[in-house]
Amino acid sequence: MRKYLFLYFIFLITPVVNGQESDSAFIAAIFEEALTRGKAHPDLKILCKQAGPRLSGSPAAQKAVDITDSLMQAYRFDTVYKQELQVPHWERGDEKGLYVYRKGKKDTLAMCALGGSVAGRADGEVIEVLGYNELMKLNPEQVRGKIVFFNRPMDVRMVYTFNAYGTCVDQRVFGAIWAGALGARGVIVRSMSIGIDPYPHTGTMAYADTVLKIPAIAISTQGAEDLSKWLKEEPRLRVAFELYCKSHPHATSYNVVGQINGKKNLYIALGGHLDAWDLGEGAHDDGAGCIHAIEALRILKAVHYSPQYNLRAVMWMNEENGLQGGLRYAFLADSLQENHLVAIESDRGGFAPRGFFIDGSPEQIAAIQKWLPLLEPYGLHVIKSGGSGADIGPLRNYSQQTVLIGFVPDSQRYFDYHHAATDVWENVNKRELEMGAAALAALTYLLDKYW
Amino acid sequence: MRKYLFLYFIFLITPVVNGQESDSAFIAAIFEEALTRGKAHPDLKILCKQAGPRLSGSPAAQKAVDITDSLMQAYRFDTVYKQELQVPHWERGDEKGLYVYRKGKKDTLAMCALGGSVAGRADGEVIEVLGYNELMKLNPEQVRGKIVFFNRPMDVRMVYTFNAYGTCVDQRVFGAIWAGALGARGVIVRSMSIGIDPYPHTGTMAYADTVLKIPAIAISTQGAEDLSKWLKEEPRLRVAFELYCKSHPHATSYNVVGQINGKKNLYIALGGHLDAWDLGEGAHDDGAGCIHAIEALRILKAVHYSPQYNLRAVMWMNEENGLQGGLRYAFLADSLQENHLVAIESDRGGFAPRGFFIDGSPEQIAAIQKWLPLLEPYGLHVIKSGGSGADIGPLRNYSQQTVLIGFVPDSQRYFDYHHAATDVWENVNKRELEMGAAALAALTYLLDKYW
Repeated sequence: MRKYLFLYFIFLITPVVNGQESDSAFIAAIFEEALTRGKAHPDLKILCKQAGPRLSGSPAAQKAVDITDSLMQAYRFDTVYKQELQVPHWERGDEKGLYVYRKGKKDTLAMCALGGSVAGRADGEVIEVLGYNELMKLNPEQVRGKIVFFNRPMDVRMVYTFNAYGTCVDQRVFGAIWAGALGARGVIVRSMSIGIDPYPHTGTMAYADTVLKIPAIAISTQGAEDLSKWLKEEPRLRVAFELYCKSHPHATSYNVVGQINGKKNLYIALGGHLDAWDLGEGAHDDGAGCIHAIEALRILKAVHYSPQYNLRAVMWMNEENGLQGGLRYAFLADSLQENHLVAIESDRGGFAPRGFFIDGSPEQIAAIQKWLPLLEPYGLHVIKSGGSGADIGPLRNYSQQTVLIGFVPDSQRYFDYHHAATDVWENVNKRELEMGAAALAALTYLLDKYW
Repeated sequence: MRKYLFLYFIFLITPVVNGQESDSAFIAAIFEEALTRGKAHPDLKILCKQAGPRLSGSPAAQKAVDITDSLMQAYRFDTVYKQELQVPHWERGDEKGLYVYRKGKKDTLAMCALGGSVAGRADGEVIEVLGYNELMKLNPEQVRGKIVFFNRPMDVRMVYTFNAYGTCVDQRVFGAIWAGALGARGVIVRSMSIGIDPYPHTGTMAYADTVLKIPAIAISTQGAEDLSKWLKEEPRLRVAFELYCKSHPHATSYNVVGQINGKKNLYIALGGHLDAWDLGEGAHDDGAGCIHAIEALRILKAVHYSPQYNLRAVMWMNEENGLQGGLRYAFLADSLQENHLVAIESDRGGFAPRGFFIDGSPEQIAAIQKWLPLLEPYGLHVIKSGGSGADIGPLRNYSQQTVLIGFVPDSQRYFDYHHAATDVWENVNKRELEMGAAALAALTYLLDKYW
C-alpha cells in the first residue's frame, strides 16, 4: 500500500509552471496530508478523553492547557508558550431534576443549571412565555412568586442553524434578569437544541447587579414539549428544583500559543477556544477548533511549507463564560506590537467544510473570494461577509486592518450536540474533522503567500 | 408558537412580482414545509423499522412495497400503483466468522457473505493482493488451493468518496472470478468502508459461467488491517470460513409508483430504490432516496403546487443485485409512451444537500445551472456534468432527450454505513434528511415550471 500511495503522491505534487496550478497542487498535498496521515482525530480524542469537561478555572481546563502545550511541543513548532490570565470559576455542583407535581404525582424532567446560575431552591407555579415581549405584556402580579418558563424553540426554517440560535439565545442569557425583575423565583429555559432530544443543553447566562439573582436551569427540548403540554392540561401545576452551584474566586489560567516562525514580523493567527461546558467533552465546541488549528500548522510543517509570516495556533481560554482569553490575546498583541494581518477562528464544530465568513472590507473579501476556484474542489463554496468569531473579535478594537475570518462547516448537526452531554469525541466524524483542518491549512497557505 | 410560526409563514410567501423572487419565495415555502411539518424522518423510521432489511425477493421487500404503497395512498397522490417484475432472490443463511489459525490458537474475525456468493467451505493459506494486476502477476501455482485476500483500501484522499468507492469496488465485484480462474478456494475482500471500523460491509458480486464459483466474504476494514499484519508475522497462517447462502428461484416483486397528475402528457420521475442489503435497515441506502421522493411530492402537494407535467415518485426494486426494477420501469415507460422529460435519482444517502450531477447535453446542464442563485441559499452549490444513477440509467436506452439527474448530498459519511449493520435509521440526521427532500422538491418545481 505504501508503494501505491507513493505513486499517487508523485502524481499529485508533480511540479507545474502556472501559479494557480502550483497552488492547486500544494492544496492537494495539504488535503492528502490531512486525510492520509492526519492527527486531528486521535489528537481530539486525547483532549476529549484526558482533559474532558474543562470549564474555565477547573482542574480539567488546566489539563487541557498542558495537553495542547505538549502537543505543539511534540510537533516541534518553533515557539510554544502560555499567556497568563484570570478567569471566572463557576462550578455546577450536584443537581438532580426538575420535579413536576401533576395529577397527584411527581414527575422528574432532566435539567441542568445554566452556566453562572446562583445556587438556590425554586418552587411554585409556572408561567410559560415565548420570550421577552410576551413576558413584558403580563401583569407583574402574574409573575411574582412564580417560575418563568421560556419556551421559544429555535426556528428550524433557518438553514444556517446559527441564525436560529441567534434568534433564541436571548431567553437563556437574559431570562433570569427579565424574570427576576418581575419577582419570579426561578427560570426554566427550553434548551437551545434544533431538534427534539432528551438532553439539557447548558450555556452562559447573565445577572444584573440591580436585580435579585434567581436560579436558572435548562430542560431538554423534549422536556419543554412535555411541560408545555402538561401546563395546558393543568395550568396551576407546581414545579421545584434546587441548585448547588458555586462561584469561586477568579482563577489563574492560560491561552496556549504555538508558532511557526516566518521571515517577516507579521502574524496570522488561527485557533479555537480551549475551555468547554462541563456536561460533555467539548468535542465540537470547541475541541474541534483547537485541534483544527494545531493540525493546520502541523500539516503546513509536514508538507515543508516555509511561511512568510509568523503562523500561530491559538487556544483561547474562557470563551464560554467570560472571553478573558480573547481579550487578553488582543491586548498582548497590541502591547507587543504583534501586527496581525489575519485572524481565523474555528468555533462552529468539526463538520464538513462549507466556507468562510469574512469580517473585513469589501476589497479584502473580494481578494479572498478570488481563491474560490482553488477551494471549491474541497466543498468550500461560501466566502462572504459575515461574523468571524468571539475570540478574535477583540483584535478589531486595536486594528481596522486585521482581517477576521470565521471557518464555516456545515451547520445542520451542530445544535444536536452544543453544550450538551452528547458533545463527545464519538460524535465527531474523522473525515469531516480532517477536512476542516485541511481547509484551514489551505486558507492559511493562501493568506500567507498572497496577503 | 403556532401563531408565531404563522406570522413567519405570511412573511415568507408574501406574493412578489418578479419571477425570480416569486421562485425564491416558493422555494422558501418548500423548505419551510420540509423543516417544520416534514414527514421524511418518521416515514423513514416506518420503512426501516417495519420492513427492515429488505433484499429483493424477501418477505421484508414485499413489506416495503406495501408500506410505500400505503404511504403514497395516505398522502392522496392521484395515482399509486405497482409494476410487476421478476427479481433474483438470494439469502445469506447462517454465518459465523472467519477463523484465523495463528500462533497455535484460533482467532475469529467478523465477516459476511458477499451478496450472491455460493455456499461452501473454504480453508487454506491466504494470499494477500491489492487487486487484479497484482494477482495476475503471480504464478498460478501460488494461488491454487489458497484463499485470495483482496485488501486494497478506499483512497481516502478522494474528497468525493464515491470516486474512492469506484476505484475499489472491482475487487468485490470480480474478485471471485479472478481468483476462481486461478484455482483459489475462496475470496476475502476488505470491506468498502472509507474508515477503519469493525463492521463487515456486504455488496453485490459476480460469477462467470466459465469459472468455478467459489465462496466470497467481506471482513471489516479493522479485520483486514489485523489479518494483513498477522500475515506479515506468519505468512503461512491458515484461515477457514463456511457459508450457507441460498439462491432461490426468481421471485415476483414490484416497483411502486406514486403520481401527481399534471396538465400535459409528459413525465418527471424522481425516486430511489426500495430494496436494501440485509445487514442493516437500508436507511441511507436507499430508504432515504425513497422517502426523499415521496416527501418531495408530498411537499409540492402541501404547498398547493399544480404541476404542468405528471410528477412521479418511483421506488425501484432490485437495484442492489439485478437492477430489474430500473430496467422494467424504462421498458414500460417506452412501451406506454410515457415520455420522460427528466428523471432524478437519490441514491447517495440522507446527508446535507450539496447539489446535482447531470447526465445531459451541455445546453441542458447550462439551463439547470441558471437556477443556482435560487438553490445556493440552501447549500446547493454544485450543478455539473456527472453520473446520475443506476435505476434511471436504462431510460437512456430509449431516449437521448431525457435529462438524468443524480442528487448529491455530502459524501463524507456515506461509506461509514453503506451495506453494513450500521445503516440504520438512528444514523440518519433528521434535518439533513429533510433538507434533501426539500432540495429535490425545489428542483422538481423548477423543472416542472421551466422545462
